[in-house]
Amino acid sequence: MSKPTDVTALGSAIVDVLGAVDDAFLLTHNIAKGVMTLIDEHRAAQLHAAFAAPREVAGGSAANTAVGLASLGASAHFVGRVKRDRLGAAFESSLRETGVDYRTPPADLGPSTACSLIAVTPDGERSMNTWLGAAREFSPADLRERDIAESAVVYIEGYLWDAPSAKQASLRAMSIAKASGSKIAFTLSDPFLMGRYRNEFLALLPELDILFANEEEAKALFAADEFDDVLQALKSSSAIVALTRSEKGCVIARGGEVHVVDAAPVERVVDTTGAGDQFAAGFLYGLTRGFGLSHCGHLGALAAAEVISHYGARPQVSLKTLAAAKGLL
Amino acid sequence: MSKPTDVTALGSAIVDVLGAVDDAFLLTHNIAKGVMTLIDEHRAAQLHAAFAAPREVAGGSAANTAVGLASLGASAHFVGRVKRDRLGAAFESSLRETGVDYRTPPADLGPSTACSLIAVTPDGERSMNTWLGAAREFSPADLRERDIAESAVVYIEGYLWDAPSAKQASLRAMSIAKASGSKIAFTLSDPFLMGRYRNEFLALLPELDILFANEEEAKALFAADEFDDVLQALKSSSAIVALTRSEKGCVIARGGEVHVVDAAPVERVVDTTGAGDQFAAGFLYGLTRGFGLSHCGHLGALAAAEVISHYGARPQVSLKTLAAAKGLL
Repeated sequence: MSKPTDVTALGSAIVDVLGAVDDAFLLTHNIAKGVMTLIDEHRAAQLHAAFAAPREVAGGSAANTAVGLASLGASAHFVGRVKRDRLGAAFESSLRETGVDYRTPPADLGPSTACSLIAVTPDGERSMNTWLGAAREFSPADLRERDIAESAVVYIEGYLWDAPSAKQASLRAMSIAKASGSKIAFTLSDPFLMGRYRNEFLALLPELDILFANEEEAKALFAADEFDDVLQALKSSSAIVALTRSEKGCVIARGGEVHVVDAAPVERVVDTTGAGDQFAAGFLYGLTRGFGLSHCGHLGALAAAEVISHYGARPQVSLKTLAAAKGLL
Repeated sequence: MSKPTDVTALGSAIVDVLGAVDDAFLLTHNIAKGVMTLIDEHRAAQLHAAFAAPREVAGGSAANTAVGLASLGASAHFVGRVKRDRLGAAFESSLRETGVDYRTPPADLGPSTACSLIAVTPDGERSMNTWLGAAREFSPADLRERDIAESAVVYIEGYLWDAPSAKQASLRAMSIAKASGSKIAFTLSDPFLMGRYRNEFLALLPELDILFANEEEAKALFAADEFDDVLQALKSSSAIVALTRSEKGCVIARGGEVHVVDAAPVERVVDTTGAGDQFAAGFLYGLTRGFGLSHCGHLGALAAAEVISHYGARPQVSLKTLAAAKGLL
């Protein structure tokens, strides 16, 4: 896999806006505790104004994976749409400071930059209010063919299927990747997406080189009652499929080949946000370095363990240093 | 697998002698708490006499598996040596009352019947003091060729390798099984045995149809650092290998085929004694009924979950009724 870029990730460009609040704030602002609620632009602006000292960090599933890849020392590139506005600039600078290459031109028209207003209460619960804005308008025009062709892996988040133009951009990226010998990696993103796109995702499977899914997503995709049914359904697939199972570790399948890899130890699980994203980062890093599947699984497990041991969806330490210390590099 | 007997199990015929004691008893009698210590006949008699109201139950790993098989409704037969003494008679009646067929003639000469004096303290800890006695003298002369030939499966415990004549009996049973089309199942029994017989067990592997091992035993057998190394080492083996992983469930491998099966839920783990023995019972039962490997794994997991939810190494309820209630029969 020797191309100028290790991984180009396509996803929703969302700014996480974190505010420390008390429970009264949730009541006053009618925020459902501990869940993700989609909101409109007006409400996003209201909540943003109500946060005292909000902290803004580039977020979004695939962008977080790109951050993890950069932390491991990979060359990672992110493609996703923001608007030319204050949050758009915040997304760009926050992502670039991690070492991720981000050059998608901000849109001059259309909805404002996407943001997720995350109200963090003293008990550590995160209540998310997400405005998808410009991220939903991501379209084939945002892609540069050469960027895709020059990436060893193109990584696409399933969330993009929820916006027609973003889905078209994803399919276009896949077709460029196929033509230029880049590997196609895909994540199922959320079990609820199977309700809407199960058949589309099943039809996509033969096109994929790498599929990421957690246990719930994989069961939903194959309409399986139990994990082993998923594993048996995958026997006829030639893709590398990385199935994550929280504390049960992960199972990596490729055709008939199966690897069972334990979770990395975590002293205390603080916030599971981003576990899947960082697993994908570690796993893809291993693949781009030509490591075996079990080794890739361990790298994914280590990155996931790091991110769930603290608040926030980005690694807090250099994953490269961490992986080296664990003898994985 | 249609033969008159489903499973003939070969193992150490040991009477478990349970005594409720306090911690002072352990000190007075110099008993190491929570572990298994081998003792001699004299000390066995002393401790037995010191127990107030001892409860005697036929035990031993393979015999417990036979009990589990009978509880599932299989025809199970046990072969192992006791002496013609009071405990020998206790072993025979205690085993027969479970429905297990036991006809090995008691020895008139040699050491007394094996027993494990289990001091149970109020905290639930079990301190075992085992006298192997007559069980170690189990020899090819104790086998009836026809019993082996008429069993669909012959199940042998690795513990028998610790006594030369018992090992010879095991090898003889395997050779009869091979000649008569009976399947050979083997359990590694204890990680410590790998230190003594690793190469012998590896050489045995191609002769086996079914191998049972917990994770520690399997790692020791293949000198593997991690579980996935075991799985990869097994790719070239044609045996069905059932690898148990405590709360992580089990993995069943046969050549390249791999099944990952979850542990059955347990409200509270009370005493893990006998988990592996009952797993083997459930799994073998499934095989004799022609069930798929994943189905067999679920039966094993269910039987193991039942036995660890209470004190003692025998099921407390009918495993057949339990399995039926869970939709596994």
